[in-house]
Amino acid sequence: MTTQFRGVIPPVVTPLTASGEVDKASFVRSINRMIDAGVDGLFTLGSSGEVAFSTDARRREIIETVMNAVDGRVPVLVGCIDTETNRVIEHAKAAEELGASAIVATCPFYALGGMEEVERHFRLIHDAVPDLPLFAYDIPVCVHTKLPGDLLVRLGKDGVLAGVKDSSNDDVAFRFLADDNAKAGHPLTLLTGQEVVVDGAYMAGADGSVPGLANVEADGYVRMWNAAETGDWDAVRKEQDRLSALMRIVTVPQDVAGFGAGVGAFKTAMALLGVIDTNQMPDPVLPLKDENVKRIAAVLRECGMELARTPDEVSASTEF
Amino acid sequence: MTTQFRGVIPPVVTPLTASGEVDKASFVRSINRMIDAGVDGLFTLGSSGEVAFSTDARRREIIETVMNAVDGRVPVLVGCIDTETNRVIEHAKAAEELGASAIVATCPFYALGGMEEVERHFRLIHDAVPDLPLFAYDIPVCVHTKLPGDLLVRLGKDGVLAGVKDSSNDDVAFRFLADDNAKAGHPLTLLTGQEVVVDGAYMAGADGSVPGLANVEADGYVRMWNAAETGDWDAVRKEQDRLSALMRIVTVPQDVAGFGAGVGAFKTAMALLGVIDTNQMPDPVLPLKDENVKRIAAVLRECGMELARTPDEVSASTEF
Amino acid sequence: MTTQFRGVIPPVVTPLTASGEVDKASFVRSINRMIDAGVDGLFTLGSSGEVAFSTDARRREIIETVMNAVDGRVPVLVGCIDTETNRVIEHAKAAEELGASAIVATCPFYALGGMEEVERHFRLIHDAVPDLPLFAYDIPVCVHTKLPGDLLVRLGKDGVLAGVKDSSNDDVAFRFLADDNAKAGHPLTLLTGQEVVVDGAYMAGADGSVPGLANVEADGYVRMWNAAETGDWDAVRKEQDRLSALMRIVTVPQDVAGFGAGVGAFKTAMALLGVIDTNQMPDPVLPLKDENVKRIAAVLRECGMELARTPDEVSASTEF
Amino acid sequence: MTTQFRGVIPPVVTPLTASGEVDKASFVRSINRMIDAGVDGLFTLGSSGEVAFSTDARRREIIETVMNAVDGRVPVLVGCIDTETNRVIEHAKAAEELGASAIVATCPFYALGGMEEVERHFRLIHDAVPDLPLFAYDIPVCVHTKLPGDLLVRLGKDGVLAGVKDSSNDDVAFRFLADDNAKAGHPLTLLTGQEVVVDGAYMAGADGSVPGLANVEADGYVRMWNAAETGDWDAVRKEQDRLSALMRIVTVPQDVAGFGAGVGAFKTAMALLGVIDTNQMPDPVLPLKDENVKRIAAVLRECGMELARTPDEVSASTEF
Repeated sequence: MTTQFRGVIPPVVTPLTASGEVDKASFVRSINRMIDAGVDGLFTLGSSGEVAFSTDARRREIIETVMNAVDGRVPVLVGCIDTETNRVIEHAKAAEELGASAIVATCPFYALGGMEEVERHFRLIHDAVPDLPLFAYDIPVCVHTKLPGDLLVRLGKDGVLAGVKDSSNDDVAFRFLADDNAKAGHPLTLLTGQEVVVDGAYMAGADGSVPGLANVEADGYVRMWNAAETGDWDAVRKEQDRLSALMRIVTVPQDVAGFGAGVGAFKTAMALLGVIDTNQMPDPVLPLKDENVKRIAAVLRECGMELARTPDEVSASTEF
Repeated sequence: MTTQFRGVIPPVVTPLTASGEVDKASFVRSINRMIDAGVDGLFTLGSSGEVAFSTDARRREIIETVMNAVDGRVPVLVGCIDTETNRVIEHAKAAEELGASAIVATCPFYALGGMEEVERHFRLIHDAVPDLPLFAYDIPVCVHTKLPGDLLVRLGKDGVLAGVKDSSNDDVAFRFLADDNAKAGHPLTLLTGQEVVVDGAYMAGADGSVPGLANVEADGYVRMWNAAETGDWDAVRKEQDRLSALMRIVTVPQDVAGFGAGVGAFKTAMALLGVIDTNQMPDPVLPLKDENVKRIAAVLRECGMELARTPDEVSASTEF
Repeated sequence: MTTQFRGVIPPVVTPLTASGEVDKASFVRSINRMIDAGVDGLFTLGSSGEVAFSTDARRREIIETVMNAVDGRVPVLVGCIDTETNRVIEHAKAAEELGASAIVATCPFYALGGMEEVERHFRLIHDAVPDLPLFAYDIPVCVHTKLPGDLLVRLGKDGVLAGVKDSSNDDVAFRFLADDNAKAGHPLTLLTGQEVVVDGAYMAGADGSVPGLANVEADGYVRMWNAAETGDWDAVRKEQDRLSALMRIVTVPQDVAGFGAGVGAFKTAMALLGVIDTNQMPDPVLPLKDENVKRIAAVLRECGMELARTPDEVSASTEF
Repeated sequence: MTTQFRGVIPPVVTPLTASGEVDKASFVRSINRMIDAGVDGLFTLGSSGEVAFSTDARRREIIETVMNAVDGRVPVLVGCIDTETNRVIEHAKAAEELGASAIVATCPFYALGGMEEVERHFRLIHDAVPDLPLFAYDIPVCVHTKLPGDLLVRLGKDGVLAGVKDSSNDDVAFRFLADDNAKAGHPLTLLTGQEVVVDGAYMAGADGSVPGLANVEADGYVRMWNAAETGDWDAVRKEQDRLSALMRIVTVPQDVAGFGAGVGAFKTAMALLGVIDTNQMPDPVLPLKDENVKRIAAVLRECGMELARTPDEVSASTEF
């Protein structure tokens, strides 16, 4: 069942208009561009899809927009991210109703607890939407809990989890997870959320990747995956080197941290490339401006990408 | 405007039936018991009020139940806890519509950001519900950000914040905040979320307290506040000593951590005292059972409290 | 045996010459000033005594200087701070040889381990210097482990620990520790390392305090202790308020953090007051200069303290 | 100058006798075994070489034993690990005197500070032993500071640092560091401290590795390095798979954490293989026993390694 989720499955950035509404035209352009590049699926309402910033109505609007734009061409994973079980289950049911191919949920956050509760959380979600493949989203930087490999493999063997989206930045744990999963008969589809050490994740046995940077440039990630599939590790490495250089768009912004720098840089690059209309960010985050936009433009040019708009035009795109 | 929020304002625990529904009869009993003890206000949908576990419909049900039970006898603060600004604003508007006296919001969580965004977050919430006093909820153990004192005082002076509910467990920062607030003309009402060092917070100048333990025994906290108001520090200390001994109900449970131990112990004690019918917990948390219930009963007895039910009865209260 | 360690026991700041040597004349002046103020003991080679920065030879020089200056007038506790057991034991034996009244040791740091090793660590130290009272130094901000109260009380009852120097900034844990220690027959002398919430610690039952700020002003801490001993809590509170205002010297420095701001501010204030000759800091830390010295001078003046030297003179004191 | 430090440079585990003395015969056997396997250098007094547990006299004894055993066959890096600058410089001078090929130092720990002090720390160390290549040891799990890539490259370009021993487990930062170092003309020799994602580090451009597991089995790491040098990534991957399976010796011990589990497992495996006589650990850490030794033996057997001694014999090796 889970083999449909192999390969490159970008987490879709949510384009906004200058006034903060979902920019559907830009959204369709961005999605078509990634599908045309050959991605194997899309993941909407991930952390970089601004799930945490979106009201329930907004989440529904985003899912509908993505489902309409994709129109069955690739599977769509939907993030069901919320603090605790019952809130997640509500999102899961909405995702199912709207046609999600699979859902992605983190462990509980905000309230403190233990691993018994984490396990029960995933079991309860699966019980609520038993027909929908469930991916565990391992993202300790946001939820402050690392999902243990033995728990994940056990939930995979029990049919609770279909896979793992690993954004833990713990490559040792990922390697051990991949080994344990292989030993257990590969119940879990393992997707790395990395951008710049995807080569290592593929060598470790990842079934695919979920790179936010693919919103900016999907072709390279598709080529890297194809090279990994054929064992052409020199080609893998070469693509990774180029994409690592491109990923510097997230490290060049000054005086801004976290989501505003990371997704802010993705949106800014996409706006500079003409894929989306503005680099607007959801409240309370402000869009990148001026020097930070210029720094990102410089990285894009160094990587040989052609800009459709000037930095000043992009800085002005949210001036309303 | 904010002076109505002085004194003892317990964060209301949400009683559940064995099947996990809101237990309205128990809720009314518990609220009446605290109001009869002389508390100065109530805080619903705080962390211990299981806000993070409750769907939007459940949150609305809880607010309505509390407002009906209180019926204007004391002010009611309502927690509007969610990941980012727009989601919090939705909760704030619902709270306003349902008659909240004030709202309480944390800084953003899940996504990473900086202090500029924290400040903008509180300003945007205040802009959305300008007539509702807004308390900042400083609870780094849940949201992984400590609110800086200078930011809080600035937002107080600007009329954005009416007060602070301090659950930071950083008493040095609280002391400095109290001093800075006093120097600034006392724009902020400062409430400590502590249970066992409330005496120190009062000496530091707190305007009141929000002790979860008051769900178990409000009288002592009311007496302690009255003693502090009259400068009878020996009486303050004596009450604190007794309440600290009672607070041990949260440290005696074995093999359970965080919310399940803390709020689990409050509910278990309340069930043993006959205030509420079950010690049921919200998914994915399990209620305390057997030995842990007995340990809590032992603490209550050591503190001279009379049990209305046996530990076995309480353990059985969630067995359907 | 441990009752000799009650009251105010300042952690002694180590004055340096402009070239970084131990400034013995300043050291003697500072020590005499504190003893004249009525302190009950001194703690040398604590965190603020720059133990981590001092070579073994330097540590020996500091102990000798302090022992000579004190000359038996008050007990002297000596910090034996190092990564693991055998290194700590070497320091403990040196301290014993040099006449320490007691020693103070943290749990192991640098290498990762568990509580079984922490307990064994303290037992092995005590076995190595059985005649020397041993204080556990609970300072998680430096060693990244919090000492659990039950472990401390057990080691107290077993005669391994004579007391605890609590710099954990966890006042809830301290309150519970004080209660457990009282229940166990008070085997441990409990000293708080706080400066601005010492009033709360005294209400919780602390046997004394180890405030770094007493290097700047010991009189207030002595008066506060005496007031606490007689139960005059209004006087305690008044002294604490004044000392909290004075403690702002550590929060006003800009662009410097941690030891450089904290002990840097103590030394700068002491130099401004004429107690020591320079505000020199140990490598790699730089002394506070210019605007930061002026900010500290302003706080001292606001607190009504008379400066013996100008900020420019102090800034120039390390210009060699 | 630094090119002599490429390839596989194991951090040497320090064998102890049952009574806790340095076991020189075992030490010589272990070192010869690694050199015979073809390692390119050795790193003594690293974290796994029990530097934090060793007194200064013990450190000197270890260096001398290693230098004598190696006798110039490969370069020897010496760890100079201590809390702050002046203590590190003492170790550095001792290492120089005893013939170290290079030294390895962490940033300051215990006292809190900022990056300005970290930079000054490395500059002062280099000034004190200017002729000795200096490696920065990036090990935030022990020192609680992550060394920023731009700082490292700047210190490399300025001739302060000869290289970096990266034990940060942050492979994204390592990839960016490798890219920046290449752009800057490769001033730094970059060694990864990983064991199970060394393949990824080599693809990212690492100049070598410092795997503790090479104490148990160096041949595989030598083959992996040689394969990486010739671009035979399939062979790299195959070796890594086998070594990852072997690394499970550190995850199988129960009820023990950190150094006791990690280095404890290395020593236990080495004792089972007959390389060293006991699996004794430095105080306060206890050696692995009984079931834990059996679990490690099982992993070794699964990996096709032949045991020279039974688990019971190894468990008994420290029974004195």
